[in-house]
Amino acid sequence: MSGRLVGIGVGPGDPELLTLKAVRRLGEADVVVTLAAAGRPSRARAVAAAHLTVQARELHVPLAMGPDRTAVDAAYDRLAVAVGDELAAGAVVAVLCEGDPLLFGTFVHLLDRLGDDAPVEVVPGIPSALAAAAAERWPLAVGGEGVAVLPATMGPARLHAALAVARSAAILKLGARVAEVRRLLDELGLLDGARLVVELGGSDERRLPLAAWREPRAPYFSLVLTRGLGPRDDG
Amino acid sequence: MSGRLVGIGVGPGDPELLTLKAVRRLGEADVVVTLAAAGRPSRARAVAAAHLTVQARELHVPLAMGPDRTAVDAAYDRLAVAVGDELAAGAVVAVLCEGDPLLFGTFVHLLDRLGDDAPVEVVPGIPSALAAAAAERWPLAVGGEGVAVLPATMGPARLHAALAVARSAAILKLGARVAEVRRLLDELGLLDGARLVVELGGSDERRLPLAAWREPRAPYFSLVLTRGLGPRDDG
Repeated sequence: MSGRLVGIGVGPGDPELLTLKAVRRLGEADVVVTLAAAGRPSRARAVAAAHLTVQARELHVPLAMGPDRTAVDAAYDRLAVAVGDELAAGAVVAVLCEGDPLLFGTFVHLLDRLGDDAPVEVVPGIPSALAAAAAERWPLAVGGEGVAVLPATMGPARLHAALAVARSAAILKLGARVAEVRRLLDELGLLDGARLVVELGGSDERRLPLAAWREPRAPYFSLVLTRGLGPRDDG
Repeated sequence: MSGRLVGIGVGPGDPELLTLKAVRRLGEADVVVTLAAAGRPSRARAVAAAHLTVQARELHVPLAMGPDRTAVDAAYDRLAVAVGDELAAGAVVAVLCEGDPLLFGTFVHLLDRLGDDAPVEVVPGIPSALAAAAAERWPLAVGGEGVAVLPATMGPARLHAALAVARSAAILKLGARVAEVRRLLDELGLLDGARLVVELGGSDERRLPLAAWREPRAPYFSLVLTRGLGPRDDG
């Protein structure tokens, strides 16, 4: 392959949280790949829209979501074929990624499939956890304290083990697990301080105590900021 | 106080990893505060230099480092007084922070001392851990996997506990603890894959297997990327 693959983190939703490098790489791309569940608009495209050039061709690839592992993998395979074709034709292909490309992103699956075949560059982006902390002015760690970014889907036992060490944590992928997370934090004595951040940077942004959330599900773009049980360090 | 305090994350060293918002807020500042150990230049200032305006006054505040807790706290107190005076005079005061302001930064100490007295905005920045992962094309997490950012100074027992859950981790603040970290990862069967990233984005940047590092200390601006022992998830 003679092209180049560029994974571009566009950050959590605020178009001003793109980096200068992300903007420059977008301007250099021959093809801009946007990803979203079939029938849905790409959130990353909306974030980066102001910086897309008319010269770049856009390639929208629908992804499969949900529990059907075979369908999800088949969609990633189709994505890799489509991107691989562009790379083989010599194109500089930019893939727009929400947050950071290497943190819970589809880009990791593309890297698995194409990383050995073409030059790859990754432009890091601001993860939602950091943007939520900034909005809440929430100190993540100082001195000898550790921080964890944890998907609720890892389950309460592993969440508990991670929170036992961390001084603070962001818990993502809440969905229907928001009640389970709330229960765990309550058991650990951490619920009082925990914050729920919903649709950060969007017009529907809400930031509230997790204890005040009464619905059975949390939106996909939401996360919890919580203290952990790790010792405090004033370093 | 009638001014405004803005903590600006300038990212890990590459001036292009500033966000658009960081650049805009720098342009709006009346006073730009840079921090560094006494007698040292500010690394964050060097990163942001291209975006400092001639209108802004610069305030360089020397910090104390090392084990003398009283001296360190006294330096933070002096910083808070100097910044508080500017805020009281109505200035928009931007504090330049390496990486992200809320992740192991001096800004947290300033927030502790001034956060209740003045409006505060935090502009998140790219942390060194994400930039190192990008340089290494190192997938941090997918699906139900967790990630941890851990200072080596938390000690091997807590590092071990955190690595038991995480799928990958960045270990910072290596210094003289680099041998201890190396020994721990070796005991856990993780040394083979671990990478040491030194002076990322600088002219002295080096990226090598941690196993190949033979010196008793690692530079201050270095970190280890390692897999953890948490289960893999292909989600």
